Amino acid sequence: MTFLTQSVLSGDRLALARLLSQVENDTPAGRAALDALFAHTGQAHLIGVTGAPGTGKSSLVNQLALHFRRAGKRVAIVAVDPSSPFTGGAVLGDRVRMRDLAGDPGVFIRSMASRGSLGGLAAATAAATQVFDAAGFEVILIETVGAGQSEVDIARLAHTTLVIEAPGLGDDIQAIKAGILEIADLLVINKADHPGVEATERALKTMLELAHPVRKVFLHHGQKFELNGEAAPGTALWIPPVCRTVALSGQGLPELLEAIERHAAHLRSSGDWARRERARLEAEFDLLFQETLVARFLAQLPAGRLDSLLAALQERKLAPRAGVEQLLNGDGT
Amino acid sequence: MTFLTQSVLSGDRLALARLLSQVENDTPAGRAALDALFAHTGQAHLIGVTGAPGTGKSSLVNQLALHFRRAGKRVAIVAVDPSSPFTGGAVLGDRVRMRDLAGDPGVFIRSMASRGSLGGLAAATAAATQVFDAAGFEVILIETVGAGQSEVDIARLAHTTLVIEAPGLGDDIQAIKAGILEIADLLVINKADHPGVEATERALKTMLELAHPVRKVFLHHGQKFELNGEAAPGTALWIPPVCRTVALSGQGLPELLEAIERHAAHLRSSGDWARRERARLEAEFDLLFQETLVARFLAQLPAGRLDSLLAALQERKLAPRAGVEQLLNGDGT
Repeated sequence: MTFLTQSVLSGDRLALARLLSQVENDTPAGRAALDALFAHTGQAHLIGVTGAPGTGKSSLVNQLALHFRRAGKRVAIVAVDPSSPFTGGAVLGDRVRMRDLAGDPGVFIRSMASRGSLGGLAAATAAATQVFDAAGFEVILIETVGAGQSEVDIARLAHTTLVIEAPGLGDDIQAIKAGILEIADLLVINKADHPGVEATERALKTMLELAHPVRKVFLHHGQKFELNGEAAPGTALWIPPVCRTVALSGQGLPELLEAIERHAAHLRSSGDWARRERARLEAEFDLLFQETLVARFLAQLPAGRLDSLLAALQERKLAPRAGVEQLLNGDGT
Repeated sequence: MTFLTQSVLSGDRLALARLLSQVENDTPAGRAALDALFAHTGQAHLIGVTGAPGTGKSSLVNQLALHFRRAGKRVAIVAVDPSSPFTGGAVLGDRVRMRDLAGDPGVFIRSMASRGSLGGLAAATAAATQVFDAAGFEVILIETVGAGQSEVDIARLAHTTLVIEAPGLGDDIQAIKAGILEIADLLVINKADHPGVEATERALKTMLELAHPVRKVFLHHGQKFELNGEAAPGTALWIPPVCRTVALSGQGLPELLEAIERHAAHLRSSGDWARRERARLEAEFDLLFQETLVARFLAQLPAGRLDSLLAALQERKLAPRAGVEQLLNGDGT
């Protein structure tokens, strides 16, 4: 283990910032550090926070961090913006939001931005998350901007995913919501002091019913349970609760924290925590395995072999599947 | 070549619909047909159409199809909706839009929907596109719904990508636009009879200047060229033009068609057509090659090998990179 890695484990913030840069840029030192830190990971509660622009997501993440700090937990924030070309500590995260958190050694904020491909961004985010986990941050808030596949990829990292809505964002947002709802463990209506909060809550509950048709109402020991975010006693069901918050005033935050803790407890008692961990590790392993396998295969190919195949492909002399067969079987061109 | 494949090549619509289903579902017969049809592909002009909900994208695609038909071209529409669980011919595409196109044997509409993963959707869309190409459709309009990675993936399929905007969609849309602009060959402000069209055009041009800073104004033989969608004479530059349309009345459609044809001519004269074709074929080949290589490697592993590695991973006894080394080198556990 290097000096840098050891400094990170012992809580050195400057070392942490430097290591994060190496890991995000996928340097050899960064990779070695990830390997060395791996044994120290698996402790943190990873919480994904996603939602459309205009929902007040950043303020809510800020408030969540404050409330987790009050509960005595060390908190890291990873702010991911696929549309931004900027990365590092100072651009997105350290902006306006951090007035209340600045100077607190129990909080660390890191902004991640586009790395050319979305796959690259997800990998870099996963790597940063592992560093924070190893460095002893107990709660890691992963905030994503935008709507689409990036959210889904990054949500796969998290144990608990919060989807943030706000009243009155209109039909355009509704159209996107269907896919996003599938990843939600908790739904949060932020800006709940704005008009239209009831309509938004109704719409969300209707969509939840569509997404979880069998879960809408269920019976347990003759008792009827409805959509309320509680698992029925003795079952492993989790129905996403709908929480109302006002991030600017902190209203609803204690209840939201409670719901998050309840979800973590549910994950642990149902065995889903271990299952999510395993799925996450498997996905990471698969990616690395495939990359390495392909790179090794290509490295031992005779020079020009691939190019001549691709040329034959472009001239329509060879179909892709036949070309793959030739490549893997080592047939002559 | 099977009877079904031959029927498709000879213009049988029912055979085409059946083959599309097989290809989308990745059946052995569908794969064999793709291989057989491959030699017949490479003729069509693939046009991607993307943009946020509310821009009137579907109506515009409808109008484009009508205008291409008037120009004597056979037109296929592939409508891709990553958020919809429905697929097939009758749900999205054949809906309201097709009043003007219904019954025209020179038009074929196909809806594609979520196939579990976005990667699967992109692959199925690519496959459907190849079938239409082989079946002699000269223009293939690939319409995507939503905003995000799906657009980018599907745009990679197209020779020409249209990004549709509309006046007054507000800041939320603007926030998404940065990434989308990079893939635009043409920008279309639809609903150009609505208020705010000038502001939208100004905003788009400003974003274009940011995206193409060196291209804003350029000199050629002492003449000054500005952002106008024309390549400077004798250069290979293409600056996305901003076109105004009103899909409901057909206003601006002839000019849009002309701009699309101009882009196709530019691609051909600059060599970009061949480069895009090659990049597309390479990406398809890479995907197929990687899948096959990985599947073959896994098939020859001793039973339980992967499971025991993943278990060691989960117990943090082994880091992912070390696990990959063990797997590829065949080391015992």
